[in-house]
Amino acid sequence: MEPKIDHIGIAVNSIEEAIKLYRDLLHVEKSAEEILEDRGIKVTFLYIKDVRIELMEPMREDSEISNFLKKRGEGFHHIAYQVDNIKMVMENAKKMGYKTLSDEPNRGAGGSLVFFLHPKFANGILTEFVEYRK
Amino acid sequence: MEPKIDHIGIAVNSIEEAIKLYRDLLHVEKSAEEILEDRGIKVTFLYIKDVRIELMEPMREDSEISNFLKKRGEGFHHIAYQVDNIKMVMENAKKMGYKTLSDEPNRGAGGSLVFFLHPKFANGILTEFVEYRK
Repeated sequence: MEPKIDHIGIAVNSIEEAIKLYRDLLHVEKSAEEILEDRGIKVTFLYIKDVRIELMEPMREDSEISNFLKKRGEGFHHIAYQVDNIKMVMENAKKMGYKTLSDEPNRGAGGSLVFFLHPKFANGILTEFVEYRK
Repeated sequence: MEPKIDHIGIAVNSIEEAIKLYRDLLHVEKSAEEILEDRGIKVTFLYIKDVRIELMEPMREDSEISNFLKKRGEGFHHIAYQVDNIKMVMENAKKMGYKTLSDEPNRGAGGSLVFFLHPKFANGILTEFVEYRK
């Protein structure tokens, strides 16, 4: 499978407010909200054809998204690319000197495997790779 | 046609440097570079399945991208959604109180029509809509 953009993460103050744009102008509806207790955030996904927008709202003052919003305000947070063989992509990345945020792929939602590149090694963009296991 | 993400714009210091990430880890090649003389920038597009990444490099100190890079550094610049009837989308946007950056859709590349929403009205994200004329 050729790589595709899996999703684009956007940090927002309120999912309920943020959703309006997509509903008003793109007629897209949100999926069910998910609460990620350990990260102190709430997320919802919008399906725009085969790419998803992930809206991320903080639930605690000390969550990563609270810090992001305080520093930069609402906006683009990360991009995720779907790949076929995440272990190979990660090995290549490390060999080529890209800084990754973990040593091995971590478990993501729905049994997926994910890893992140440090933004400094990815044109200023927090960059995620994800493989969905069959 | 349902709306889709047409492209994601990324501001970079050097297309030649920025391209490496996509070449190394996603095996994506760039299209020909285009010089947009009036905006003082150089752009190239990467095709990641049916969404394009637009890399934008400044060619002059006074270009919009120079200013962006000085303020925020390299990173995400804008997102563009492809729609069927841009006039209707723009009318709806104005009626609903979204601030647009022009009064009418402007001509974009390849005979397209485009308009932008002000980031303050779009979750902090400079948001473009584009219609490709048949």
